Amino acid sequence: MTLRPFDSLGLRFDGARLELLDQRLLPDQTVWVDADDPDAMVACIRALSVRGAPLIGVAAAVCLGHYALRGAEPDDVRGAAARLRAARPTAVNLMHAVDRMMARWHPDDREVFAATAQTIFDEDVALCDAMAEHGAGLLDDGGVITHCNTGGLATVGVGTALGVIRRAWERGRKLHVYVDETRPLLQGGRLTAWELGRLGIPYTLITDSMAALVMRAGKARRVLVGADRVAMNGDFANKVGTYALSVVARHHGVPFHPVAPYTTVDPACDTGDGIPIEDRDGAEVRGFGALRWAPAGCHAMNPSFDVTPAANVTSLVLDRGVFSQRALADGALRALGLGGAARHP
Amino acid sequence: MTLRPFDSLGLRFDGARLELLDQRLLPDQTVWVDADDPDAMVACIRALSVRGAPLIGVAAAVCLGHYALRGAEPDDVRGAAARLRAARPTAVNLMHAVDRMMARWHPDDREVFAATAQTIFDEDVALCDAMAEHGAGLLDDGGVITHCNTGGLATVGVGTALGVIRRAWERGRKLHVYVDETRPLLQGGRLTAWELGRLGIPYTLITDSMAALVMRAGKARRVLVGADRVAMNGDFANKVGTYALSVVARHHGVPFHPVAPYTTVDPACDTGDGIPIEDRDGAEVRGFGALRWAPAGCHAMNPSFDVTPAANVTSLVLDRGVFSQRALADGALRALGLGGAARHP
Repeated sequence: MTLRPFDSLGLRFDGARLELLDQRLLPDQTVWVDADDPDAMVACIRALSVRGAPLIGVAAAVCLGHYALRGAEPDDVRGAAARLRAARPTAVNLMHAVDRMMARWHPDDREVFAATAQTIFDEDVALCDAMAEHGAGLLDDGGVITHCNTGGLATVGVGTALGVIRRAWERGRKLHVYVDETRPLLQGGRLTAWELGRLGIPYTLITDSMAALVMRAGKARRVLVGADRVAMNGDFANKVGTYALSVVARHHGVPFHPVAPYTTVDPACDTGDGIPIEDRDGAEVRGFGALRWAPAGCHAMNPSFDVTPAANVTSLVLDRGVFSQRALADGALRALGLGGAARHP
Repeated sequence: MTLRPFDSLGLRFDGARLELLDQRLLPDQTVWVDADDPDAMVACIRALSVRGAPLIGVAAAVCLGHYALRGAEPDDVRGAAARLRAARPTAVNLMHAVDRMMARWHPDDREVFAATAQTIFDEDVALCDAMAEHGAGLLDDGGVITHCNTGGLATVGVGTALGVIRRAWERGRKLHVYVDETRPLLQGGRLTAWELGRLGIPYTLITDSMAALVMRAGKARRVLVGADRVAMNGDFANKVGTYALSVVARHHGVPFHPVAPYTTVDPACDTGDGIPIEDRDGAEVRGFGALRWAPAGCHAMNPSFDVTPAANVTSLVLDRGVFSQRALADGALRALGLGGAARHP
């Protein structure tokens, strides 16, 4: 079978049916949704039923591969690819996964196309393991602050920032994780808390504004976050609130580390200024889910991401190693030779 | 009548019945609750149906005065005073209002006792006006960030920080207010947004973590917040999230101003280290109201307040004037001669 069955925390394939866990219903309900149809997948990405930059890249690739193997018309494959590629504008992984698939697309050789999806899947698992290895070495016993969700629900492997924490914990580090709830969509409170509970790693849920208090009290040794897109100078976009966390960490002298796979690094972005930011509906800020607490229709800002300058980054943990602020300033990411063929080996 | 009828935004008295607006039900429902009975008032303070440090001080005083005028037994008045005084540990206004009442308590001269409540009420209105006058001079056209609720719902006058904004707006300043939603209890999203909408002052609701973005984009000229207790060195306690906001403001060079009446200044606290912080139920962080989104029973931090050091304060706006960081460091608050008789004129 060109596309092997798999069963990751948020995406599973039994050889016939591709399903994703509706992350909007966690932690109380685990509901799996049919995602065979590319447009169903697009809708799930837009609705954030599936989220996490690495995961949606893999999900889109696997969905396309599976769609092609089922004999979809060439025009339909190309159309689906275009719609999937545009489903989440900030997530560079998604675009690159789709581009990588389409570079192998030939209607008469669908096995190669599907095998590319399998490669992308396998690579995500391996990239998570590599990040976890590099990052775990940074952690001593003590408190760690994290933001949003960057674990098994954000990838098909152990995760990015949360994968580092998990690996260090499994190696015996006595960690306590302070979990930013991550308004407005509360991925920390809903997803990271759920994952840490499953893993048995001790944690405390905090509102985003409490991270500064945790640092002031000397309870946080490091901050680990994910990244949705990394510019060549080390600036990076991540879930809104990351920038504020970086400022607060810098003020308190707490080391601050984005953790991301090389697929997140975008050679087309010289600096963070080049990263487009998705604006979402203000309703997400006026309440949560079906509950609204602010005045109906009041104006609310809702950028989904923000950009943290490299000046606030102690070091960037990539699957290829740990890059200090100085190394980033000296062009270490450009020196990786990503982009073009090197980018998509 | 010793206690005159009044009709403020959050507390009203028709000469017979004392009622408070249940602020938990705003912005969609305006429900007035009977608060004649001191224990009903204690319950309302604990449940945050009534909140805002100045308002609860006035509400407790008026409630006691009204209770005494209705012929309550002396032991019952004293017991009620003790329970009211302890209902909100961080709010120094509450303790001082109750102490000021009880200094005038004599079972045979209840008119004097009730008149003291009237004085406390009148003074709150006048203090708000004085803060608004002093603070409005700081504001030019442009964006202002505020946190929690410090308006007509937090006092019986125009408010503290929001009163300053209102006064500057009424004087023709072209302001745009960025309203921190203020997790966990969302007083910004629920109450400040509602008040600004009533006043017709343009505003944008933001999650607490977006304030840093607003500053980085150059959209905020100042930050104005309230204070629940001010130490003699200028450190102050306020709604949790204020400290993080002060750090972020300092990083971006945005002037940061607590606004408070002199009754908030506590001569017994030399520094912020002496301010007790109320810890509330983690359920408030695991969700909102009846809605829970984090795993049931997971551990959550929930300090109701945090302490901002004077080093992050550009100037403190009191009813008595504007005190710069340097003036605070030079002992300006001690020089006011508050405390004892001077404190309760």
